[in-house]
Amino acid sequence: MTPLPPGAIEAAKAAADAAGAVIRPYFRSGITADDKSDDSPVTMADRAAEQAIRAVMAERFPTFGVIGEELGDQRLGRFNWVIDPIDGTREFITGRPTFVTLIALVEDGVPVLGLIDQPVIGERWMAAGGTLDFTSRFGGRIGCRKRGALGDAELSCTGPEWFDADQRAAFHRLEAACRRASWGDDAYAAGLVALGEIDVIAEAGHKPWDWAASVPIIEAAGGMMCDWSGNKLRLDAAHDGTVLILGDPSLRDAALAALQGG
Amino acid sequence: MTPLPPGAIEAAKAAADAAGAVIRPYFRSGITADDKSDDSPVTMADRAAEQAIRAVMAERFPTFGVIGEELGDQRLGRFNWVIDPIDGTREFITGRPTFVTLIALVEDGVPVLGLIDQPVIGERWMAAGGTLDFTSRFGGRIGCRKRGALGDAELSCTGPEWFDADQRAAFHRLEAACRRASWGDDAYAAGLVALGEIDVIAEAGHKPWDWAASVPIIEAAGGMMCDWSGNKLRLDAAHDGTVLILGDPSLRDAALAALQGG
Repeated sequence: MTPLPPGAIEAAKAAADAAGAVIRPYFRSGITADDKSDDSPVTMADRAAEQAIRAVMAERFPTFGVIGEELGDQRLGRFNWVIDPIDGTREFITGRPTFVTLIALVEDGVPVLGLIDQPVIGERWMAAGGTLDFTSRFGGRIGCRKRGALGDAELSCTGPEWFDADQRAAFHRLEAACRRASWGDDAYAAGLVALGEIDVIAEAGHKPWDWAASVPIIEAAGGMMCDWSGNKLRLDAAHDGTVLILGDPSLRDAALAALQGG
Repeated sequence: MTPLPPGAIEAAKAAADAAGAVIRPYFRSGITADDKSDDSPVTMADRAAEQAIRAVMAERFPTFGVIGEELGDQRLGRFNWVIDPIDGTREFITGRPTFVTLIALVEDGVPVLGLIDQPVIGERWMAAGGTLDFTSRFGGRIGCRKRGALGDAELSCTGPEWFDADQRAAFHRLEAACRRASWGDDAYAAGLVALGEIDVIAEAGHKPWDWAASVPIIEAAGGMMCDWSGNKLRLDAAHDGTVLILGDPSLRDAALAALQGG
């Protein structure tokens, strides 16, 4: 892997700042959502925030591609930004301060920089080169938690409606093997894995912009991410939309066995 | 109904302040949870915060009873405080700033004062005498939202694991009739109904301390609460643990019909 392009971290932060400035006035403003073809909601704030991020990237890295949730896939060469202006649009449109802006830089299919930003209450996770920074007024310690056994693990998932029947059964096996489950919060919950607060996340129906930013953050904090078959998540490989996040990589075999019913 | 006892609002606020001061140092501190007999988690912070609330109430209203989630039921006469020091202990132990402290004053079985407090990010809903105050640095407008039709309504629920099989089927009928569902956040979500952000909440397995504080808040904001059969929630009546919150009371018949499969 080549060194991170100079200025990439600063660009990601500037883009997140720009997105946050766009998003904050819409929060709890009575904004209405449209339904997309996959039935997920999108708002004026999603689209305007993605435009703000793209403007920063176009100016600073004109030769890099951009793959965004709302405004399409302009993939180019070796380096591509992968962005979700508002991950957790359901949280955003219901007034919860736990939606996040996600920005990843992907090199040859592998995320090498990840940023998770909560612009209302002001929390940010930023990882590159194996180092994670976390800024918040509300505490939190960087580093995933060791659990040793799935039975001690806190499981989290955004919502059961993303599963098909087989995935629902797989999730229920994993849930039964963990200590308990909690719900909601999309990639904000991935940030909480990197703080040692949540141990396991299992999601389905994910697109690259849902998971790419979390990979460098989770790995820098000592955890791991893969799909429900144990494959690494790469942008240049086929992917069934399942995502497994483990704060303690030693839980990998037990978690995959639970998901696969083996 | 008699006038609110003088000093009750100030006592509720002082008790919430005391609870918050106890809770904040434990947030994202690596605190561990014990499992209670109903499989729900409890921590040192829950117990210490309830003690702090009880100390304020014992000093200011020695003749009132106290019914708390963690430290038992000392019910007395006409006025009783009903408290949950940390509603959403799952959110609390996973580092989410959306757990809340709940304080209600109940007169002859009917909640007449309600307070919802989020002590980490500093948001508070306080209702008594038909008036709601909301304080937050992050925006939000007091008042439930009119929707007119269930198909436009945002539904929320803490998690599917609280339902038995019949309740799960009832919830799925309601979910199918609403625009979409989002998950998590316990009584914080009730606060968001009072801000017109969420339209419908359906929960099961609730105890009085889970719902009592929300009643005056929702009613002061123009909404309504009942059980899934349409009965008013009262502390002195039998209750099956189901709770329905509607920001727009005109949705009552449609929501109950969906829940009841009629």
